[in-house]
Amino acid sequence: MTFTVAVSGASGYAGGELLRLLADHPEFDVRTVTAHSNAGQPLTAVQPHLRSYTHLTLKETSAETLAGHDVVFLALPHGASGAIAAELAADTLVIDCGADHRLEDAGDWAAFYGGDFHGAWEYGVPELPRLSGTQRTRLARTRRIAAPGCNASTVSISLAPGIRAGVIEDADLVSVLAVGPSGAGRALKAHLLGSEILGSANPYAVGGTHRHIPEIQQALRWAGAASPTISFTPVIVPMSRGILATSTARVVPGTDAATVRAAWEDAYAGEPFVQVLPEGQFPRTADVLGANTALIGLAVDEAAGRVVVVTAVDNLVKGTAGAAIQSANIALSLAEATGLPVNGVAP
Amino acid sequence: MTFTVAVSGASGYAGGELLRLLADHPEFDVRTVTAHSNAGQPLTAVQPHLRSYTHLTLKETSAETLAGHDVVFLALPHGASGAIAAELAADTLVIDCGADHRLEDAGDWAAFYGGDFHGAWEYGVPELPRLSGTQRTRLARTRRIAAPGCNASTVSISLAPGIRAGVIEDADLVSVLAVGPSGAGRALKAHLLGSEILGSANPYAVGGTHRHIPEIQQALRWAGAASPTISFTPVIVPMSRGILATSTARVVPGTDAATVRAAWEDAYAGEPFVQVLPEGQFPRTADVLGANTALIGLAVDEAAGRVVVVTAVDNLVKGTAGAAIQSANIALSLAEATGLPVNGVAP
Amino acid sequence: MTFTVAVSGASGYAGGELLRLLADHPEFDVRTVTAHSNAGQPLTAVQPHLRSYTHLTLKETSAETLAGHDVVFLALPHGASGAIAAELAADTLVIDCGADHRLEDAGDWAAFYGGDFHGAWEYGVPELPRLSGTQRTRLARTRRIAAPGCNASTVSISLAPGIRAGVIEDADLVSVLAVGPSGAGRALKAHLLGSEILGSANPYAVGGTHRHIPEIQQALRWAGAASPTISFTPVIVPMSRGILATSTARVVPGTDAATVRAAWEDAYAGEPFVQVLPEGQFPRTADVLGANTALIGLAVDEAAGRVVVVTAVDNLVKGTAGAAIQSANIALSLAEATGLPVNGVAP
Amino acid sequence: MTFTVAVSGASGYAGGELLRLLADHPEFDVRTVTAHSNAGQPLTAVQPHLRSYTHLTLKETSAETLAGHDVVFLALPHGASGAIAAELAADTLVIDCGADHRLEDAGDWAAFYGGDFHGAWEYGVPELPRLSGTQRTRLARTRRIAAPGCNASTVSISLAPGIRAGVIEDADLVSVLAVGPSGAGRALKAHLLGSEILGSANPYAVGGTHRHIPEIQQALRWAGAASPTISFTPVIVPMSRGILATSTARVVPGTDAATVRAAWEDAYAGEPFVQVLPEGQFPRTADVLGANTALIGLAVDEAAGRVVVVTAVDNLVKGTAGAAIQSANIALSLAEATGLPVNGVAP
Repeated sequence: MTFTVAVSGASGYAGGELLRLLADHPEFDVRTVTAHSNAGQPLTAVQPHLRSYTHLTLKETSAETLAGHDVVFLALPHGASGAIAAELAADTLVIDCGADHRLEDAGDWAAFYGGDFHGAWEYGVPELPRLSGTQRTRLARTRRIAAPGCNASTVSISLAPGIRAGVIEDADLVSVLAVGPSGAGRALKAHLLGSEILGSANPYAVGGTHRHIPEIQQALRWAGAASPTISFTPVIVPMSRGILATSTARVVPGTDAATVRAAWEDAYAGEPFVQVLPEGQFPRTADVLGANTALIGLAVDEAAGRVVVVTAVDNLVKGTAGAAIQSANIALSLAEATGLPVNGVAP
Repeated sequence: MTFTVAVSGASGYAGGELLRLLADHPEFDVRTVTAHSNAGQPLTAVQPHLRSYTHLTLKETSAETLAGHDVVFLALPHGASGAIAAELAADTLVIDCGADHRLEDAGDWAAFYGGDFHGAWEYGVPELPRLSGTQRTRLARTRRIAAPGCNASTVSISLAPGIRAGVIEDADLVSVLAVGPSGAGRALKAHLLGSEILGSANPYAVGGTHRHIPEIQQALRWAGAASPTISFTPVIVPMSRGILATSTARVVPGTDAATVRAAWEDAYAGEPFVQVLPEGQFPRTADVLGANTALIGLAVDEAAGRVVVVTAVDNLVKGTAGAAIQSANIALSLAEATGLPVNGVAP
Repeated sequence: MTFTVAVSGASGYAGGELLRLLADHPEFDVRTVTAHSNAGQPLTAVQPHLRSYTHLTLKETSAETLAGHDVVFLALPHGASGAIAAELAADTLVIDCGADHRLEDAGDWAAFYGGDFHGAWEYGVPELPRLSGTQRTRLARTRRIAAPGCNASTVSISLAPGIRAGVIEDADLVSVLAVGPSGAGRALKAHLLGSEILGSANPYAVGGTHRHIPEIQQALRWAGAASPTISFTPVIVPMSRGILATSTARVVPGTDAATVRAAWEDAYAGEPFVQVLPEGQFPRTADVLGANTALIGLAVDEAAGRVVVVTAVDNLVKGTAGAAIQSANIALSLAEATGLPVNGVAP
Repeated sequence: MTFTVAVSGASGYAGGELLRLLADHPEFDVRTVTAHSNAGQPLTAVQPHLRSYTHLTLKETSAETLAGHDVVFLALPHGASGAIAAELAADTLVIDCGADHRLEDAGDWAAFYGGDFHGAWEYGVPELPRLSGTQRTRLARTRRIAAPGCNASTVSISLAPGIRAGVIEDADLVSVLAVGPSGAGRALKAHLLGSEILGSANPYAVGGTHRHIPEIQQALRWAGAASPTISFTPVIVPMSRGILATSTARVVPGTDAATVRAAWEDAYAGEPFVQVLPEGQFPRTADVLGANTALIGLAVDEAAGRVVVVTAVDNLVKGTAGAAIQSANIALSLAEATGLPVNGVAP
């Protein structure tokens, strides 16, 4: 059967990427696209790369325009989805690509976002280990899914297997990410101008202030961490998309390198979209561009006493829109990989 | 007075940058440029951006062509400068931009480079703290200078003040660097092709294998570290030049944030080329492009128990050619800042 | 039914892109991949982005390894495919992505390439107008197809409709192209290093020497030009993929702007992969990244007496691998668009 | 003697570049920097790369704050400088980096800009040929200078020698430019976001609408053209700075290639900042990054009947701020090259 779909926030980057992927999904039929300031325009006037959608016009984002579809994707600014989601029918599958339904802890929400707290939905990273099993099981029986923060899911995927297997300490984690500016969205901000970003590496949210930190800690607690601490620094680099997360953790003393590596290989064995590369190989973001794939390279640095986990993700696909669709596939009992590309667009 | 200068390796990136900076140096007169496979060609055929040197032709690199100058800069591949340097007159000021004379420890050389060990020269990072004073004093009384590795000096500058002041632990340091490919030189390697680098973040030398690691440890020992351990990961990003090093260290328990910050501000107070930004500001590599400036931003992440030091450097200037000239200025008793730009070329 | 496929030159950029597209093609089954210096390696060691092919190992390129497949794609260096193609069975569908079978005129081959001349195969740009109909008809009844040169087909697509309709003069055409370096392949050449390409626009083959010029002239003659002359200049810019061709031609005096525009709109009406944008809109290469789409924007500059045609193409898809597969679909009587993406990967 | 200087629009890209160059100018002393929305902030809060100016605070732009300096640089949005310039003392040297004083013809101003017409000042491209001599003579005796549009001056420099020498026709000129986004300034516009520009070539102002067209025609008329027509298309490419202009013109029938080349070589013989490369060499924008140099490569395409002139310029230096300072040097009877870099920052 085919499911009818509405995408709100269709004029943004996450919304555009949802539509690009949905165009090749055999079970979804995009009927409605909505936006705010661009409502009334043809979709391709705002997203000229979406050539298969020349027939669609952007409607105003509202509970009314979104109602009546089997699946609703919300790709709205943080703080905007909570209210609208509350108006959608309980049996509609709703996937929120914003932050509003990611955090379980009201204190975390208040500290890092502020405003009304809407409570957590099931977290849309199926492969993420939990104390027993994976996140996948929970996604299979919900109609409300919170797609992950792109940086957060990349780091969580990087570190959770080591936590789960007990081979790394949960204190003193360190992640530094090279990220493309599309993760920051299409908002007009001076530091996101092309002239500022071309030819330069630009850090932001340094020193423990980034909003994805509590989201990472939450995922690591699901994997068994008691009270994880992480130093987290994103650096914008001159590529439109992509996250290359270099995460390090202290190896639990007495654990040999093979055991460390096995934790990741076992956690992701058989996963189509999270792949651990052979010893000595490390991923590049180009390898996953446009794909729903997270590629992981791993090395144990014995001199430093740390494991180094390098993970490449396309922030708009596995980091957002692909994760949303993968999770929707699960919730709808479709084959999990339906409509999702695994090969990157390189070079 | 004017000093006569020869630059070997003038067809490479470090050699080209030496020449660009020397062109605006009032006390240096470049008489001779040498190369290997490009010998016999006009310099501008190989370095078309060096428009002020249309009168120079590349000679063969040899002790003979380099002899007879007051100052000789060696910008040769690793392993190539040791032999040729041994043939130069003792009173010639020789600055080696390669690795051959950086490491004091023969074991480090054997482990990370291999081949003949030539012993260490004075290290060309004047601002680097030593247990007493700075590296500057030693440079003032030598005729043999080893210009630093670009990644190494960036990380050493980032962490040494905290070590020197005793506010950070020397174990479990972590540095992740976004670097431009020019740091890898002009050699023809598949992973350095434009198609591989554009639009992608590409890690290399992951897991404790990078050759700059012992050089960093050496500099931190000079600052007082007993046995520093560091997890060090460079990531090539799509900008031709620049290093953005994100370095973190555990704050010594009980040290408050202001004391931590003061360690860096005190260490670099009055330095023209190493500047600590005000609280809340962090540098971008574009801010130092083409300049001999290292810009440092600093934050204490109390939740993570770590200080995060973000340092931006132009790998070819402060990381190599600028450091070489700055050190030469000191050795020749010229004003240290002579001929060296402090403002970056941005945007 | 499913057709068995072999791809030679699978370690290069064109070969890699063929494989990426073939992975999602429901009627093709890639059985064999071949290479030269990389033979014996797993495909993913050389093409790490092709995650769906972890089961394939590169064989040596030879007529023997390629024989026995329904379809053979040759993605070899210029001059290398002629000999091997001659050994393949007549009823095998062979698509040559190199230049060896593009030119009909032995004199053109001698002047721009040299070496053995192998004669022309059917030219793999289905939409290209010919004096009667399109190139598509010829592709439907052949087993030998020459995929186009990426720059050539982009310019031919840009100008042929105006020639065919008689609204532009065929003398004094001018095309300037912004191109990504992947069009030059994976060969190790100094001017293709990332450091040379990042942050710079670099012209090459200026002044009428580019090998794609006779290929363009041939296509324009097919459209009706008597003796087309074209000034053609490619400029490498810092994006891994993409061609943005700005082509101008003198409007035949007395032709109004609407008639000019109609020539292109009529020529490409109903084409899924060549789309003319509405008045006032012009394409960006990001709009077609990864897609088999050519997007055309058109303006008549009455003051200059010229039409300006701006066409965006992904050089590796519509410019090479996508054109090859689209043409193969036609030759095999499959639906022409099978397995080919129409939406670009943007931003 | 030292001249006191004020720079208005100091928070923009042109203003920032003026300050970067002025910092190394031995005869200028920057006393005042002004801005609009950023007034009151330290200059380095807005221009963090200008490390030598940590002592300056941005004042409000007004005739009052600018008065009392020997030299005033205006780097304001188009339409903003006319009124303020009218209030400055007649003996103050005023250089307008905006468009307000470039065009001599009120009709051109009305057609391409609109609003109040302020009349033309002397045009700040000293090397530009006029029917007799160069623009230099006029700059030597003025106190009002209009710095050029960056695209306009690049194209004018490219074509004027051929016009002046009578070797090219003035009808049917064609220029296509690869340009960095910094030429469009620091304004917040969606099409200038990094995500839109990275990895893509984006045309704009296609079809004869760009505001620099009448400025080019004016310069070509100064060189002797009766009524020049030009097809002009700029394409934004992913480099922060730089213009690579590919300009072609029909060679006057019967003119041989050597005569064509001689027109450019003669026009720019002895010019420090406009250099014609040897036969077969063509410039890259990296060769002039940060420098006040225009590099020209030239080829005669006999088959096409056109000369191709490829010119590389840094839009912020030779295209704007460097041209302004070079012209100011002339007007103040300083050595013309004072304080201006000739070598590019490459790679």
